[in-house]
Amino acid sequence: MQRSGEAVQDHYPEGFAHCFGCGRLNDHGHHIRSFREGDETVARFVPASYHIALPGFVYGGLVASLIDCHGIGTAADAAMRREGQPIGSVASPRYVTAALHVNYLRPTPMGVELELRGRVKEASARKAVVEITVAAGDTVTATGEVVAVRAPESMGGGG
Amino acid sequence: MQRSGEAVQDHYPEGFAHCFGCGRLNDHGHHIRSFREGDETVARFVPASYHIALPGFVYGGLVASLIDCHGIGTAADAAMRREGQPIGSVASPRYVTAALHVNYLRPTPMGVELELRGRVKEASARKAVVEITVAAGDTVTATGEVVAVRAPESMGGGG
Repeated sequence: MQRSGEAVQDHYPEGFAHCFGCGRLNDHGHHIRSFREGDETVARFVPASYHIALPGFVYGGLVASLIDCHGIGTAADAAMRREGQPIGSVASPRYVTAALHVNYLRPTPMGVELELRGRVKEASARKAVVEITVAAGDTVTATGEVVAVRAPESMGGGG
Repeated sequence: MQRSGEAVQDHYPEGFAHCFGCGRLNDHGHHIRSFREGDETVARFVPASYHIALPGFVYGGLVASLIDCHGIGTAADAAMRREGQPIGSVASPRYVTAALHVNYLRPTPMGVELELRGRVKEASARKAVVEITVAAGDTVTATGEVVAVRAPESMGGGG
């Protein structure tokens, strides 16, 4: 099980690195980072004390946000894998979300690091469908699917 | 077209009023508020400057969060309508999200107030399926569906 020290989001071009969820240049954001690990991608996140739905349970909108950005990161990783490129060897390609589906299986508890795992279900040059699980400890609390579409370079302002 | 001055979320019991998306008691949250308007519900929201996916465009995770909380508010409103209850005449019933689906039709621009409209597609005492549109000006930029399930009273800590 190899894990790169570099995250997909560390290498988005500057014009694509301002996302509230995963942009390294967004001072207010979540800074979600997706790493390659075996056949999967993994992201780990500890919600802030105020990211709650009810006291003791993580806000579902945050869970959706984590799935979204990790899904997009997983699509980018898959594109690089297809080219035999380690993360960081090239600028990470930037995908955007066409559709997001989240199933909340049970309440996600606060006070533990969440682990998201991503797998590509299908992919072409332009589009990827990514499956994500969200786990708190050994318990999967949510699953998601992200339909990711390659962003035109012009969207990033050439950055 | 009647619009109540009271929002669904103004009347959640205290134990259910801490949600980061829509809880009036969450000092850090979005404070999404859902109003009854004709046959629909409406919520309006202006993203903060840092809620971006790319410069100029709203973060998709925020769009998902708005759909989620407004969907849950719409489910609560529907339950009250079935009993002939104006918003605020009773404590708003609290639903939780079982599933969330978002279709991002086009990028959502920053700099305009977003308007979310909710309609109940199907509902029973325990469950509702709510359809949501997100519009920036006259343009619908995203649609969503929320499967909402009535929360057990015990989840709110009796608050």
